[in-house]
Amino acid sequence: MMTRRGFLGFAGAVIATALGMACTQEERPVTTPTPEVVEKVVEKEVVKPLPAPPWEYKKLNPDKVAELAYQGYMGKTFDGEKLPGKACCFGAFYAIVKSLADEVGSPYTEFLPVASIATVGEGGLVGWASLCGALNGAAWAIWLITPEEEAKKIIDELYAWYMYEELPKYKPPKAMKAELEPFPTSVANSVLCHASVTNWCKASGYKAFSAERSERCGRLTADVAKKAVELLNAVHEGTFVPAYPLDEKTKSCKGCHTKGSALENTRGKMACWSCHTKEGALRIEEVEGHPKI
Amino acid sequence: MMTRRGFLGFAGAVIATALGMACTQEERPVTTPTPEVVEKVVEKEVVKPLPAPPWEYKKLNPDKVAELAYQGYMGKTFDGEKLPGKACCFGAFYAIVKSLADEVGSPYTEFLPVASIATVGEGGLVGWASLCGALNGAAWAIWLITPEEEAKKIIDELYAWYMYEELPKYKPPKAMKAELEPFPTSVANSVLCHASVTNWCKASGYKAFSAERSERCGRLTADVAKKAVELLNAVHEGTFVPAYPLDEKTKSCKGCHTKGSALENTRGKMACWSCHTKEGALRIEEVEGHPKI
Repeated sequence: MMTRRGFLGFAGAVIATALGMACTQEERPVTTPTPEVVEKVVEKEVVKPLPAPPWEYKKLNPDKVAELAYQGYMGKTFDGEKLPGKACCFGAFYAIVKSLADEVGSPYTEFLPVASIATVGEGGLVGWASLCGALNGAAWAIWLITPEEEAKKIIDELYAWYMYEELPKYKPPKAMKAELEPFPTSVANSVLCHASVTNWCKASGYKAFSAERSERCGRLTADVAKKAVELLNAVHEGTFVPAYPLDEKTKSCKGCHTKGSALENTRGKMACWSCHTKEGALRIEEVEGHPKI
Repeated sequence: MMTRRGFLGFAGAVIATALGMACTQEERPVTTPTPEVVEKVVEKEVVKPLPAPPWEYKKLNPDKVAELAYQGYMGKTFDGEKLPGKACCFGAFYAIVKSLADEVGSPYTEFLPVASIATVGEGGLVGWASLCGALNGAAWAIWLITPEEEAKKIIDELYAWYMYEELPKYKPPKAMKAELEPFPTSVANSVLCHASVTNWCKASGYKAFSAERSERCGRLTADVAKKAVELLNAVHEGTFVPAYPLDEKTKSCKGCHTKGSALENTRGKMACWSCHTKEGALRIEEVEGHPKI
């Protein structure tokens, strides 16, 4: 028998024990719960760097590239649509790179907006009349596309062809600067804009800043781009055979004057007689009646 | 007074109540805790076209660019780390573009792998000795960075400075090809590799394919890159003042021979007398005892 007091004491103890047991024995979260970790994926756009050249090449249509180069020179299409650059160097560079953006896609497509910088090569580099812009632009494009060894062979062939060939040959569907029939041609004997232009002006009778001379350079740009693509195609197919060695006189000069020779006092592949003869480069004193400077 | 049976019944009820109360009345976390969100950044590479130049410019340190250009020419750093190109054109182009990739970041960073194509400009373009590669590469870089009008002014100044200045001036911390003290200098009188190299060989006595000539061109590349950056900085700050006009003789020639003149039979800014005088360009027949070609 238990007294009331005894019971209360006992009941209290029971309750306390029950409480103590209740919330410890059962596994109920009583401490700070471990939060559930949820991953929120945040995409950060990082522009992919362009891959290191050379890039992929696919055979191009030389005539189509010629047509695009001519329009590139003119700074607009035959339909009057503005292009992102102009003149010789841009014409050649853009025609090749744009054609590959169409044929191959990436990375030419991502690179294409940069092609506008080739405008720098205009008139032998910002009008300095040094290296012909079409040749300069074509060379940079070739190096983008082909491994070094092949690129050098292509450029050597292209430059020699340019020196010795009667040009221009290209005929646009519609002349954008001047229509002349037949169109006057000349042999440059040089890769330099200065000599190339002067020789054409001499042969044609047109002035150096005329629309006709501009038309000539536009067509020449088309010829250069076309030739570059023909060479790229040939190398791509494994059918390339050099057909434009340096002329015999130049080779003879180089034999004593360039690499490994007795004198070894200069460098280059430009036709020497183009500057180092009276026929090549007149002097003031040789021109009768020429004012003294 | 309670019987034992009565007590147990009562105690049981108390315990049950206590249990029931214990874990409901108190505010203990029983529901799912708020999850902790952890952001995980995942870089997603997107293929994006490069933006159309010109791009952003930030003032560069000309001496640092010079040092990088010299190493670019050599194709490796002072520590022997290979660089993605070599020679004059690459040296100048790469030094400027890489420096801007470091200072500005995008889009130079994405473009940078393409800089290797500037190797094409070596030796006046694949050894043709036409336009000096350092000048060629610098010009393309300038056009990438600056709007056309300013770019033309910078290039005109850079090219004229190159023609008339006694060079090289740059001194590497450690010569990579040849150490000569003092280092021979010369005046190019031309933007053409052929004439520029020949004049230095004449002045220094070293051969055209020697290590000394290579060292000279490496230092010259550094000078060109440094000058280009000085001009870019000046234009950027609005302090550019042209200081290298064409020489008086050349201006005089141009007065009758180039744009808008009476004859208008040529183009260019190269110093005419550099080729069109006996002092400028010797002919075979003028060299005593020279073999006929």
